Amino acid sequence: MTTTVPLWHSLWENLRLATMQGGTYSVMEDAVIATTQDGKIAWMGPRRELPDGYRAAHRHDARGVWATPGLIDCHTHIVYAGNRNNEFEARLNGATYEDIARQGGGIVSTVHATRAATEDELFEQSVKRVKDLLAEGVTTLEIKSGYGLDLESESKMLRVARRIGRTLPVHVRTTFLGAHALPPEYKDKSDDYIDLVCQTMLPAIARDGLADAVDAFCENIGFSSAQTEKVFLAAQQAGLPVKLHAEQLSDQHGAALAARYGALSADHLEYLSQEGIQAMAQAGTAAVLLPGAFYFLRETKLPPITALQDGGVPIAISTDCNPGTSPMTSLLLAMNMASTLFRLTPERVLAGVTTHAARALGLQDKCGQLAVGMQADFALWDIERPGDLAFVLGSNPCVGTVVGGELRS
Amino acid sequence: MTTTVPLWHSLWENLRLATMQGGTYSVMEDAVIATTQDGKIAWMGPRRELPDGYRAAHRHDARGVWATPGLIDCHTHIVYAGNRNNEFEARLNGATYEDIARQGGGIVSTVHATRAATEDELFEQSVKRVKDLLAEGVTTLEIKSGYGLDLESESKMLRVARRIGRTLPVHVRTTFLGAHALPPEYKDKSDDYIDLVCQTMLPAIARDGLADAVDAFCENIGFSSAQTEKVFLAAQQAGLPVKLHAEQLSDQHGAALAARYGALSADHLEYLSQEGIQAMAQAGTAAVLLPGAFYFLRETKLPPITALQDGGVPIAISTDCNPGTSPMTSLLLAMNMASTLFRLTPERVLAGVTTHAARALGLQDKCGQLAVGMQADFALWDIERPGDLAFVLGSNPCVGTVVGGELRS
Ligand SMILES: [Zn+2]
Ligand SMILES: [Zn+2]
Repeated sequence: MTTTVPLWHSLWENLRLATMQGGTYSVMEDAVIATTQDGKIAWMGPRRELPDGYRAAHRHDARGVWATPGLIDCHTHIVYAGNRNNEFEARLNGATYEDIARQGGGIVSTVHATRAATEDELFEQSVKRVKDLLAEGVTTLEIKSGYGLDLESESKMLRVARRIGRTLPVHVRTTFLGAHALPPEYKDKSDDYIDLVCQTMLPAIARDGLADAVDAFCENIGFSSAQTEKVFLAAQQAGLPVKLHAEQLSDQHGAALAARYGALSADHLEYLSQEGIQAMAQAGTAAVLLPGAFYFLRETKLPPITALQDGGVPIAISTDCNPGTSPMTSLLLAMNMASTLFRLTPERVLAGVTTHAARALGLQDKCGQLAVGMQADFALWDIERPGDLAFVLGSNPCVGTVVGGELRS
Repeated sequence: MTTTVPLWHSLWENLRLATMQGGTYSVMEDAVIATTQDGKIAWMGPRRELPDGYRAAHRHDARGVWATPGLIDCHTHIVYAGNRNNEFEARLNGATYEDIARQGGGIVSTVHATRAATEDELFEQSVKRVKDLLAEGVTTLEIKSGYGLDLESESKMLRVARRIGRTLPVHVRTTFLGAHALPPEYKDKSDDYIDLVCQTMLPAIARDGLADAVDAFCENIGFSSAQTEKVFLAAQQAGLPVKLHAEQLSDQHGAALAARYGALSADHLEYLSQEGIQAMAQAGTAAVLLPGAFYFLRETKLPPITALQDGGVPIAISTDCNPGTSPMTSLLLAMNMASTLFRLTPERVLAGVTTHAARALGLQDKCGQLAVGMQADFALWDIERPGDLAFVLGSNPCVGTVVGGELRS
């Protein structure tokens, strides 16, 4: 009789786990995580259940701190050039949105700065913000294009996003958001711009492997649902999954449209209807809530949170990090806002940046939960209980992060 | 003829200054700050105006970064033991305040934990939070007692506060807040407790030099204005200036009472009346606004900010760092909230954590502005303009802090 003796790459012992399996804390005390050579979880369980005779090349004593799945920020516009702090100050000093637009402000100013920046400049400016997120335990990050609005500039943004994933210890997922805003050169010609997006930009970007998904901004001040559907059709043709900025300022029935195209997620959702909720539930489309934008814009209309929960829609939480409406580089702060402003329990909030955030990126089989076979991505926390993560306001209890089985310094 | 050649301790050159003189940015480009041996500003001005033949023992090149006066957090309850995160979670899971109180929660749980902690334990737990503030450029910090509620425990809190000031590079001002809440052993005997505060605790604490000021919580759920006045009289007798938690949840005419006693500040002020504003303006009493508590409690009634400004009342901003209603250890976040939620301009917000915060502590001749004769306390920032400080949400642009002329590592 022969017995297989496990030979592991690394062993992390003396952990308190909130595995977040099934979107609940699923606490495991005095736990051990063993990893494979290729950065996956090989074994996980209470220390007393460790198999006889196991061996591990590397051992780490976590000294009893808490570990959760690495956090996932599933909706960001973190790659951009310039900043819009001056507009923030001008508005508080009484300038209207029109005044600011007349002076070339608003999203157009970010488009100009992003187009003008070299790829290296764009990388340097963006990487500072990404590091803020990583310091708080983020191990997977979605990054959208959408400030280039022409093929070359959109491609540049997505290349920078890919480079962030190669340079820093974080898994990056990229999303092509050409239909984010109308570029100045297409003023009053939005259908022409959508044709450019669908016929030229999207196919080229898909061919170059620069995007993992496609997104659009479906809104009165963005693109119509007919235009959005054209983008979805082009994405389908290119074999890319879709997501949508939907129902942030009005009900455009965007979430239902997205669900019809099997969208990974519909995001914002303050004005989402019951019909939209049902469509999302049936399609398995996740809801991504963005309390930072809600806070920053001083919105008063809450997303239909109870109805989403009752409808069984997985709820993710994200920073929406962007220069105009959510200049936020802290996922822990977004978590506090989700609890404080949206009244989500700390357990649901933590699921929203792990289990359900993975779902919103189509990564539910790879990350977002601690389980055998998943990526060995976890964050270590100096906290008393997992609910503390939604409570902190300005402190960072992250004391270590493991990405693909390796400790990130 | 003899000329005095300046001989300085340190010279900081290549600075962009927002001196905050008079509560405005008062920008000075390509500036130099020279310090005396005892940590004061000896000379300040544009490089081209440097006097002939000056000498300095130490030189620092600030490489063109911005400097502001060191930030002042003028209202904190940062010394305490335990935490109340479990109550936050219980409430979001549906527990009522009564449920929590029945289980010994609320402020009473902090009182129990603080009484039970040794002085060393209390120091260790508190110093972690203080370090979060210091990392963001705070150089002066007010710390209140108020979780001991007996002479020995209140004294212990204030000794810990003094020890923080001796141990860390930060100026600490202590405030005796015995009249914060009714200790459990005085249930239904609030007049007896106020007598204890006035006749025993306050005189002893004043005699031991443990307090720089005296504060009280004047509210329906706190102490009446008659009881508050007793505390003020006792403070007057002990030669200590007063401050007041006033008009947070209802109008108790606390601010006007405080003004009659020449209070340094009245704090919170959501329900402040025009009468209270006039009384504060006449007495030179500063308003301390606490947007963190406003956010955390999801208040909707804003303090009368325009009327305070029109009335000429200096407005300070602070974290109110405490375990129950503002678990916030970031003054930059409080600044963002003051802009976003209270619509204060970034310039007024910066004045609120420098010039006017000094006023709220009676330190206007020592700090809060960069000027000759003031303490050489300043923070160095990697920002494009001083207004950026109220815009950041989750990042920390502080790249150095100088306290009493010495660089804090
Ligand atoms: Zn977005
Ligand atoms: Zn307070």
